[in-house]
Amino acid sequence: MPETFHIVPESLHNALIEAAYRHRGFHADEAAEGARFCAEASRHGIRTHNGIKALHLDHLFGSGSQGCVPGAQIEEKPSRFPATRIWNANRKLGQSTAYRAMDAAIKLADQYGVGTVVVDNAFHYLWGGGYVMDAARRGYLAYTNCTAALAEVVPFGGKFPTLGTNPHSWGFPTVEAVGYPIVIDWATSVVAMGRVQQLKREGKPLPPLAAVDKDGNPTTDPNAAVSLLPFGAHKGYGLSLINELVAGFIGGSLPTIRNRWTQAAGDKGTCCFFFQVTHPDAISGGAFARGRTQAQNVKAVIADVLGHGNEKAMLPGQLEAEWARKTAAAGGLLFSRAEIDAFNELATEAAQPLWRAESFRTVTH
Amino acid sequence: MPETFHIVPESLHNALIEAAYRHRGFHADEAAEGARFCAEASRHGIRTHNGIKALHLDHLFGSGSQGCVPGAQIEEKPSRFPATRIWNANRKLGQSTAYRAMDAAIKLADQYGVGTVVVDNAFHYLWGGGYVMDAARRGYLAYTNCTAALAEVVPFGGKFPTLGTNPHSWGFPTVEAVGYPIVIDWATSVVAMGRVQQLKREGKPLPPLAAVDKDGNPTTDPNAAVSLLPFGAHKGYGLSLINELVAGFIGGSLPTIRNRWTQAAGDKGTCCFFFQVTHPDAISGGAFARGRTQAQNVKAVIADVLGHGNEKAMLPGQLEAEWARKTAAAGGLLFSRAEIDAFNELATEAAQPLWRAESFRTVTH
Repeated sequence: MPETFHIVPESLHNALIEAAYRHRGFHADEAAEGARFCAEASRHGIRTHNGIKALHLDHLFGSGSQGCVPGAQIEEKPSRFPATRIWNANRKLGQSTAYRAMDAAIKLADQYGVGTVVVDNAFHYLWGGGYVMDAARRGYLAYTNCTAALAEVVPFGGKFPTLGTNPHSWGFPTVEAVGYPIVIDWATSVVAMGRVQQLKREGKPLPPLAAVDKDGNPTTDPNAAVSLLPFGAHKGYGLSLINELVAGFIGGSLPTIRNRWTQAAGDKGTCCFFFQVTHPDAISGGAFARGRTQAQNVKAVIADVLGHGNEKAMLPGQLEAEWARKTAAAGGLLFSRAEIDAFNELATEAAQPLWRAESFRTVTH
Repeated sequence: MPETFHIVPESLHNALIEAAYRHRGFHADEAAEGARFCAEASRHGIRTHNGIKALHLDHLFGSGSQGCVPGAQIEEKPSRFPATRIWNANRKLGQSTAYRAMDAAIKLADQYGVGTVVVDNAFHYLWGGGYVMDAARRGYLAYTNCTAALAEVVPFGGKFPTLGTNPHSWGFPTVEAVGYPIVIDWATSVVAMGRVQQLKREGKPLPPLAAVDKDGNPTTDPNAAVSLLPFGAHKGYGLSLINELVAGFIGGSLPTIRNRWTQAAGDKGTCCFFFQVTHPDAISGGAFARGRTQAQNVKAVIADVLGHGNEKAMLPGQLEAEWARKTAAAGGLLFSRAEIDAFNELATEAAQPLWRAESFRTVTH
């Protein structure tokens, strides 16, 4: 069903988000990084991690709780390995930490071929796809995973939620090949808990094998659902477990006490991040068929995958790229009326001028 | 249902596999690496990639076709990046290439923290889990992916098979934590084509959304199934696409002509490999809760995931570790009567003494 969006100038959006972060005690550089990230999410149609959600999550788990500390300084730990960096984020704003970690990984990749940055004591970075997309647009292969804020997912064969929705995000430098970066980015649960709440409000059933009830039995009733299931049975379970294991090697503690500060007393309740960047020259054998360049070869491979009658198949990242085109054509970020109202709640909190919905041009998509 | 296995001394098994490889023209070092790998597969209950299957696949796609060249020399390509290596395998035996690439990645990880080796013009390495398990047992985090021999998988939303069953394999150094390496290792299709054939013979239906018919419509009838589907809809599709993209950056050509030498004339029909090893010290923040060591911390995380009533959940790699214990207890590799017969076909081909099934002790599992 077509939806009407208000076209909000990006500078106006960013000013409000920056003010909202500053009002909560974040420093100017953090507020700017937070706003930049929210604009990227909205530009690409990622409504689950726009400015409204970012500041709501900061209230729930971040500076409004014990998960995030405004003005925290990132501390680099000593290491004998030149191509990797180990950071203690000291619960700094996730977006700030992630942007800086990806920049550091890019510098390492430029020098060593592959650069890796791991982060202990991290606060949720919201949308991993945003960071790998950014690195991919700059010409690199990029990957990130993190441990999600809460353990909400039941391991395959189990009953009780002991895993996060633990996402994985991969970005590929395919702008020359297809016009935008291919970005493969999803949680390892079938759906997010927010989706369960939404279906409950709408009185609609859950997809099969997406959630379990209080006894650990699969249910499609959103009212009975208390925990989530991994996608793809043992395969999605393994993918979720990877994030917990990597975090365990970095410094993360028990998943079931993560961000549950009453239970985590005397222990650690923070998340971990893993970032990796690869320079495309470092993996190029240089011998591409029919005299192609590396980018031409990747383009030919993609054309083969989407050819042969597969024209209806999409590339991961394609929807996000299409939304970015709509945003560019409109000349501003696109928000629904309900979203404008929610931004105005942030404006009230931060004592900023309210947005007048009727002052914005609109567009229907 | 319990099955009876013949207990075959590993030295006897390896001597036959080595002779079979040498009979096909492989050099002594390749034959030894091929045999070592098949023994590892059988030790861990990987019956889809034991010696019988390895030599069958070599006949179909390897030295019996144009995919593999006995005695081929691996060529290292020049690179300005110190932490990565780019190899042209020149179609060398996959097991030889993979063992050597993983060793090279370990050396790089020891020096740089993370070591990466990519391989162009590769021949199928059979079971990626074996290589990451080996590296994990030596104390490293390891990962590999490859492009599968044939394009048999339809992209999500498409109709025609343009992707391989493209597996991913991750190994974690968890011997101290749980007694064996956690190994997450699977193809990105719901099932393999071999499973479709097996269900066809047994007159049993396929799982839902595992295969499509000639028109690209999902079917559970193994007689109608012509192509496979990725697991987990767009998520498994993305994971399969990763291998094609990485291969495209390395030097792989169109997936639909891979190992189809009549179509690949004037182009490239070979596979690509990607190997990566991480030294656990390179990602250790050193600040583990409650004074734990890194290994103790990983053990605590795993205990938390499998606790809280999740005792029936298994760890990836657990079944393989249990089979290895059965193998060790029996004092030899375990093969069914049908498998003994198949080994004797190899013995006949290579003019080696036949195995007398009745000469082996047996065990039932």
